[in-house]
This record gives sequence, C-alpha cells and structure tokens, in this order.
Amino acid sequence: MLRSPGGNPRHLISAADLTRDDAVLILDTAEEMARVADRPIKKLPTLRGRTVVNLFFEDSTRTRISFEAAAKRLSADVINFSAKGSSVSKGESLKDTALTLEAMGADAVVIRHGASGAPYRLATSGWIDGAVVNAGDGTHEHPTQALLDAFTVRRRLVGADAGLGKDLDGRRVTIVGDILHSRVARSNVHLLHTLGAQVTLVAPPTLVPVGVERWPCEVSYSLDAVLPTSDAVMMLRVQRERMNAAYFPTEREYSRRYGLDGLRMAKMPEHAVVMHPGPMNRGMEITAEVADSGRCTAVEQVANGVSVRMAVLYLLLGGSETALPSAAARTEENK
Amino acid sequence: MLRSPGGNPRHLISAADLTRDDAVLILDTAEEMARVADRPIKKLPTLRGRTVVNLFFEDSTRTRISFEAAAKRLSADVINFSAKGSSVSKGESLKDTALTLEAMGADAVVIRHGASGAPYRLATSGWIDGAVVNAGDGTHEHPTQALLDAFTVRRRLVGADAGLGKDLDGRRVTIVGDILHSRVARSNVHLLHTLGAQVTLVAPPTLVPVGVERWPCEVSYSLDAVLPTSDAVMMLRVQRERMNAAYFPTEREYSRRYGLDGLRMAKMPEHAVVMHPGPMNRGMEITAEVADSGRCTAVEQVANGVSVRMAVLYLLLGGSETALPSAAARTEENK
Amino acid sequence: MLRSPGGNPRHLISAADLTRDDAVLILDTAEEMARVADRPIKKLPTLRGRTVVNLFFEDSTRTRISFEAAAKRLSADVINFSAKGSSVSKGESLKDTALTLEAMGADAVVIRHGASGAPYRLATSGWIDGAVVNAGDGTHEHPTQALLDAFTVRRRLVGADAGLGKDLDGRRVTIVGDILHSRVARSNVHLLHTLGAQVTLVAPPTLVPVGVERWPCEVSYSLDAVLPTSDAVMMLRVQRERMNAAYFPTEREYSRRYGLDGLRMAKMPEHAVVMHPGPMNRGMEITAEVADSGRCTAVEQVANGVSVRMAVLYLLLGGSETALPSAAARTEENK
Repeated sequence: MLRSPGGNPRHLISAADLTRDDAVLILDTAEEMARVADRPIKKLPTLRGRTVVNLFFEDSTRTRISFEAAAKRLSADVINFSAKGSSVSKGESLKDTALTLEAMGADAVVIRHGASGAPYRLATSGWIDGAVVNAGDGTHEHPTQALLDAFTVRRRLVGADAGLGKDLDGRRVTIVGDILHSRVARSNVHLLHTLGAQVTLVAPPTLVPVGVERWPCEVSYSLDAVLPTSDAVMMLRVQRERMNAAYFPTEREYSRRYGLDGLRMAKMPEHAVVMHPGPMNRGMEITAEVADSGRCTAVEQVANGVSVRMAVLYLLLGGSETALPSAAARTEENK
Repeated sequence: MLRSPGGNPRHLISAADLTRDDAVLILDTAEEMARVADRPIKKLPTLRGRTVVNLFFEDSTRTRISFEAAAKRLSADVINFSAKGSSVSKGESLKDTALTLEAMGADAVVIRHGASGAPYRLATSGWIDGAVVNAGDGTHEHPTQALLDAFTVRRRLVGADAGLGKDLDGRRVTIVGDILHSRVARSNVHLLHTLGAQVTLVAPPTLVPVGVERWPCEVSYSLDAVLPTSDAVMMLRVQRERMNAAYFPTEREYSRRYGLDGLRMAKMPEHAVVMHPGPMNRGMEITAEVADSGRCTAVEQVANGVSVRMAVLYLLLGGSETALPSAAARTEENK
Repeated sequence: MLRSPGGNPRHLISAADLTRDDAVLILDTAEEMARVADRPIKKLPTLRGRTVVNLFFEDSTRTRISFEAAAKRLSADVINFSAKGSSVSKGESLKDTALTLEAMGADAVVIRHGASGAPYRLATSGWIDGAVVNAGDGTHEHPTQALLDAFTVRRRLVGADAGLGKDLDGRRVTIVGDILHSRVARSNVHLLHTLGAQVTLVAPPTLVPVGVERWPCEVSYSLDAVLPTSDAVMMLRVQRERMNAAYFPTEREYSRRYGLDGLRMAKMPEHAVVMHPGPMNRGMEITAEVADSGRCTAVEQVANGVSVRMAVLYLLLGGSETALPSAAARTEENK
C-alpha cells in the first residue's frame, strides 16, 4: 500500500507494494467482513457519509459490481462513472477527471484503466486527497484480485479461523495460461511470494513475458510435471480476442497442453484446489467437469472478492476501530 | 409462485403459476405498499441490508426503474447489471453470471431476458439461493405487469379498500392487439382467469398464436362487438419494429380495425376502463383523446407497478410480518 | 424560480427567472450545504424517502454525478435514467416519459435535453407534480452552472461568511468565448446582472448571438482591453466539434486572440480570478500555466456545484426548516 508520511495506508495500487503484514491485515480484516453476511442486517455503518466512485475506463461489470456491493455493505454512497460517452472520451485528461472527482468529495476512487500505471499516476499526482484503489490497469496489476485469491487459498488450505494472522508459508501455487497479458498473474506472483508461497508459472513459451527471470517464481512448460506438487492451481482466463493472434497456439493445442480436465485434476494432491478468476471458458482452459467440481473455488473467489474489497475500503478510508474490535487483536495473537 | 419445499414463496416466474390466494395476497400487500407514499418518509426499513440485482439482458428503462424504485422504497441496496458490454456479451454463460451474483450476495435477482424460459432456468437450476423475479422473458411472461394490471382493474372496478381480499370474479376484460408476440397478454390471460375474470382476446388473425384454443379465454376478431360488454379494455402496444413484417396489417388498417378512438370508447359501458402498459403509440393503437381521458389508466398502472413490485419483493424476501401487521389479517377478514 | 400559486418555489428552469432574493437565498443555503462536508458523517437526513431522477437525454457525466452526489448527501434516493437505449429513443414522447416518472413517485426530475425549452415544457405541462430542475437545455440555459459560478465569485471576491446575504453589486465579470452556442454564458449573463454585477462578453464576431444588444451586458472584441478592469474572467470551453465549422476561427487564431495565457493573466487586477466550467482544453482557450495557477477556480467550481445543487434540491423539495436553522435568519440579517 502507498502510505502517507505518517505511515497510514492511503492507496492500493499494486500487490507488489504490500508488505507481509499489510497483506495479512487485509486478509484478517476480510475474514471479519465475511461475517457481516451472517448478520440480520447485512451491513456495517462504518462508511456512512463516504462516497466511493467507480471510475471505469474499461467495461468490467463483475469487478464494478463487486466493489459496488462492498461499498454499499459498508453503507457508503456509490457513484458509477463509466468513462465511455463521458467528457473523458471527448479528450478530458485524467488530471481533470481526477480534480473533478476530488472536488465532488470522492473519498475513494476505484479506477479501472487500459493503461498500465494510470492508478499510480492518480495516487501520486497530488490531484486527489481520497484513496485510490487499482481495479486493474493495462497488463500491470489487479491487486484486489490477488488478495481475494490469497484469501481463498488461505481459507481452503489453512482454514478461516485457523488462518487468522497466518501467511501462506511453503504452499505451492501454480498459475497457468497467458501470463504475458495477465495483470492477475503479475499481482498474484508478487503477493503470493510476499506471503511465503512458492509460485510456478506454466505457459506456452510465447505467452511468458520477457524478464520473467527477475520475478520471484519458477517457470515450467509442462503442466503435468507440476500438478503433483501443487497445493493450488490457478487457471487464467483465455481472452477470446487474443486466440487468433500469431503468438497464440491453436485453441485445440492450447486446450490439450494447458487446459485442465478431470484426468489432469486427478494428478493433483487430494487437498489441492483449482482456482479461476472467472468468467470461465468451459471447454477451453477448464472443462465443465473441473469447473463444477467441489475442488474448483471460482464461486468462492467471487464471494471472497466482496469481503476483500470491503476490507480494503475499510482500511483505506480509516473506519474507526470500534466497528472492528477484534481484527487487530487477532492479528497479534496468531502471529 | 415457485415455492420452497416448506411451501414458502421463493420466486416469481410466471403468472400462470400463481394460485388465486397467491395473487390476492400480492394485490392486498400492494395496497399496503401504496400507502407508504403517504408517509412523511416514503420508505419502509423492511429490506435494509438486502441486495436486489437488476439483471437486464434487454434494455427496458421503465421496468428497470420501477423495480429500482420499489426496492429502494423498501430500503434495499440496488445494483444494476446491464448485460450489454459486460462479460456476458463476451460469451459468459447464464450459469456463470448466476453463480457470480449469488456469490456476491444477491438476495433477489430481477431478470429481463430475450429468451423465453431464462428466468425459470435461473430459478430452478440450483445456481442461486436468492429469489428470482421474471421481469419479462421473450414472448413468454411478464408476471409483474399482469399483477399491476389486475391491481389496477380491482382498484378501479371494486375499490382500493373494498377490494381487499377480493378477486375479479365475473369481470370481463378484453385484450386487444398483437397477442402473438405479447408476453403481457400471455401473463394477463392466465392471471385474470385465475382471479375469476372472463378474458376475450381481439386481434388480427395473423397475430393470434397457434394453440390459443387451449388458453382460458375467448377470441374475437371484432373489437366493436365486444366493447359493449367489457369492463376493462387493455390495448397492447404495437411494436414499431414489427409493423413492416408480412404478417402485420398496414398501419392504417390496424388502426382502423383495432385502434381505440373516442367513438369506440363511447360503446363501452360507463364504468369501463381503458388500460395500456405504455409507452403508448398515440394515433396507432390508441388516439390521444382516449389516452388522455379519465378512463385511461395508463399512468395509474405505472404507479401501481411500483406498489406491486414492492409487494413481490417484500413477500419473496420474507420481510418480517411486524412491518405489515394488517395484510394477513385483512386477507382473512375479506374472503 | 417558477413558483406555485402560493408563492413557493417549484422548479428551477432558468437563471433569468430568479429574483435577486431567490438567488441570494440559494447562495446562502449553498454556504450552509458546503459545511456538511466538514461533519463526521457528511450527510444530512433532509431528503430521506425522496426520489430524485436524473433524466439525461444527452450524456453529461460531470453534471449527472454532481446532482447525484448532491442528492445522496441529502439522503435522497437517486435513479439515473439515461434516455439512450430507452423507450424514449424508440419514440416515446416527453409527455409519456414525464407521466411515467411522476407515477413512479419522482419528487424531483433533473433534466438535461438537447432541445431548448424542454425543461420549461416539463415544468409547465401539468404532467408532473415534482420539482423540475434544468440541467442544461439546448443553447438556452444551464442555471445551476450560473449559480455555482456566482457562488464561486462571491466566495472569492466577498468571502464565504462575509458574503452571506450579499449580492455581487458592482463587480465586473468578463465572459470569453463561443457565446453563440453557450447556455452557460446565457445563464450567467442573466444571473450576474440580477446580482448587480456588470457583465462584458468577449467573442469573435461570428460567435456573438443576434439580439445580444437586448441582453443586460456589454460586448467587446478585445480581450486585452477588458482584462485590466475585470474582477473575474470566465473562459468558456471550446467545443471541439465546432472548431471546424465555417463560422469558427482557426484554432491558432482563436487561441491567439481569445485564449488566456500567463501574459494576459498578468494584465488582470491582482485580486481577479479566472473561471472555467470544465473540462478545460489546455492550450486552446486556456494555457496549462493559467489553468494550474491559484487564480483559476475551475476545481472550486466543481466542489461548489455540489453545494449549490444541494441547496437547489433542498429549497425545491421543501426540506423542513429545522434542518437548516440559520439560513433564513442570516439572509435577513445581512441584507
């Protein structure tokens, strides 16, 4: 998290910025948030009077409504600002948009942008006093996706209560697919490493980014080789618009070598889980059999996404500690 | 209503599913809801903390904002999910969308879909725990439209208070227009029949569906013949995009034979009302004179739509009875 | 403001309608509203249970979210109705749309329309009981923009507290740019005049409207000549789509003669401010140096826009005086 001079978290731009303690605090807070759904009234009053703006330069209904649900569950007001058809598309600069949102009293701006670095620029420009949350920028990062993935792994492999205060020390996570274009992969590699996990990337050679040797992970070209030692296998979504590109294998080839089907899943240890950020291309990177099996966490990931985003908004907007009495305490206890 | 094993209403998919008692309960509850508008603060706290998702695969601003207003008047959070430009349009299956909304904590999904049967599939698939409300599917059904129409007929012909607990026994309702493509007509035929009304359809022969002889209604090809015995005449909207189809009469012919003008309205009994689901094509199926007369209920129907949708959301989401003390009691009393 | 027979304000259609007292009351109320942002919970409960509909026939994300933020800060429910893709675009009349919104219980309709006069028609038609607020109609008016501009001038030149109850008597305001197509200019000329300011328009001769001699202002063709005596200089946004029209000077010519750069700004009195309704075309009507200087109020104008729109909604929807105890009193005192 980018911090203010006083050390308080201010923005969430990149999973690579997070310290282990930051990340564990978010995951622990998300566990508290997950319990809000069990209350008679499934809301916390914490962010009443605060305004969260969803500033989306790219369409992403799933991510937008996840943040919207999270903010509303914390009683914030939500304003959706789709940059399409707005003055932004008529050439308004990011700066003017930022100054406008700031002036309107946005306490947090959740930004999705096609250009890598746009959220960082927004957060560090001085244009905005409110918190900036990166909801996906170009091929760079998608930190709340990585946090919800880590939350899901911890819940499944360590347990909800047992996991409090814990990281992912020694767990083996395999990420499979188009690493080159995936901000999800990038964010996950950094966050999982920070949390102590061992990460292996599996991809066609043309879909591995240049410079991957400086990433804190292994690279393999054989899915079958790494499955038996994986605690979690994260299948990336194949972007249909890339399938016909020259660097992309044929669909059949991709599916045969990098798709996860029942036979392959059987090679994983019994406790291991299959993850997918959704929406799934059934029959392409994952078969329906695997997608619908109890080992696939895709649906849990969506639910966990709301909890994690509640935690992020809660921590960045400085909700008073009284509403969450146990989080800090538990984090200490369980270290 | 589709019921859970315990008999509680779970979903509203089709007007044809409703028993007389279901329908009367909804209409009576809607009368209670209509009174909320007279309160100093025009809201009930009943659904605070509940999330209603408007999942619209087809544009329908009127229906969407009616449900949105209804949900907000019950203090629910509303998330609008237009399937256009979302991952749905990139090939996400209805299943994955459903699982996503469920995971995000949707307590009710209001679905509008171009394919007949989509809401039924959503409700019976097991993908979703929340309530499913059909807001129009293909040429199949539009049950809340039928309920608001029945509510309007009962209010006008029996009275708001006098109508409580009552059905439409013996009332004669005529539905005029393009029955073939009309989910509104289909829902109305079933619901009005269930409530004891006698329904007559009037349409050009090419716009009467095959199999209509199995519907619980009469068919006539002469509007003038049925007007003198109608208590309510429901004019369907002509869809402009269908006017040039081979099966469609010319505009002039349609308007001359099936349009309602002042002369024709004069043939109706004095107490009879003219209904229209809106938006009206003035000069086509209805003249401005009729549309603006005191006998036309088009505007009341819109207002009643909010009350009826409040009632449906209230009953499906199991609002506690304390907030609506009198409804159940009154239903008993007036039977 | 258009008033009801009893004299209560009902609608805000045109800045030209406002009396001096109307305008000062709105500005004073806006000062109260600006303080809401300093509260621990940045909301007033005043409009709880009221519904504000944003009915936008033209895209204008900035104006829409400003009204949305204002309404939510007053605890109203907000429904966004973009006329694109709605039945309106399928030929529904303004009348039917209005009757629909009225029937759904809209307490206020904020309307943006490409046709001059549409808000007036909506307000005077009898179609609607709720308040109508003009959010920009054709080339006619944009009264809340003029009010926020006047509020900004008063704050900067007279002071926030010192300005209460005061008008702009004797202040000199210069408006520069495409007057011909600008509803912002039109609204400002009338409102500033009503508030006692002296207004000068500066524009290329082809961009001065016919009949301007009947407006309560001066016209000049030389920006340099009027700068030394201006207390505020309001730069209009150049609409890119008009730049290639025959009546429009070349970009270079426009920028050279009517653009505001640092050299020109130096000719203004020290206390004078530069205003811009945003979004700015940096390098066209205003240089980055001027835009980013402390004399440019563009960002304050956005913030003030929320306060002014809160004041308008508050006054039109008849919020109880108890929530704003001091406004009326102060207006009296300071006269």
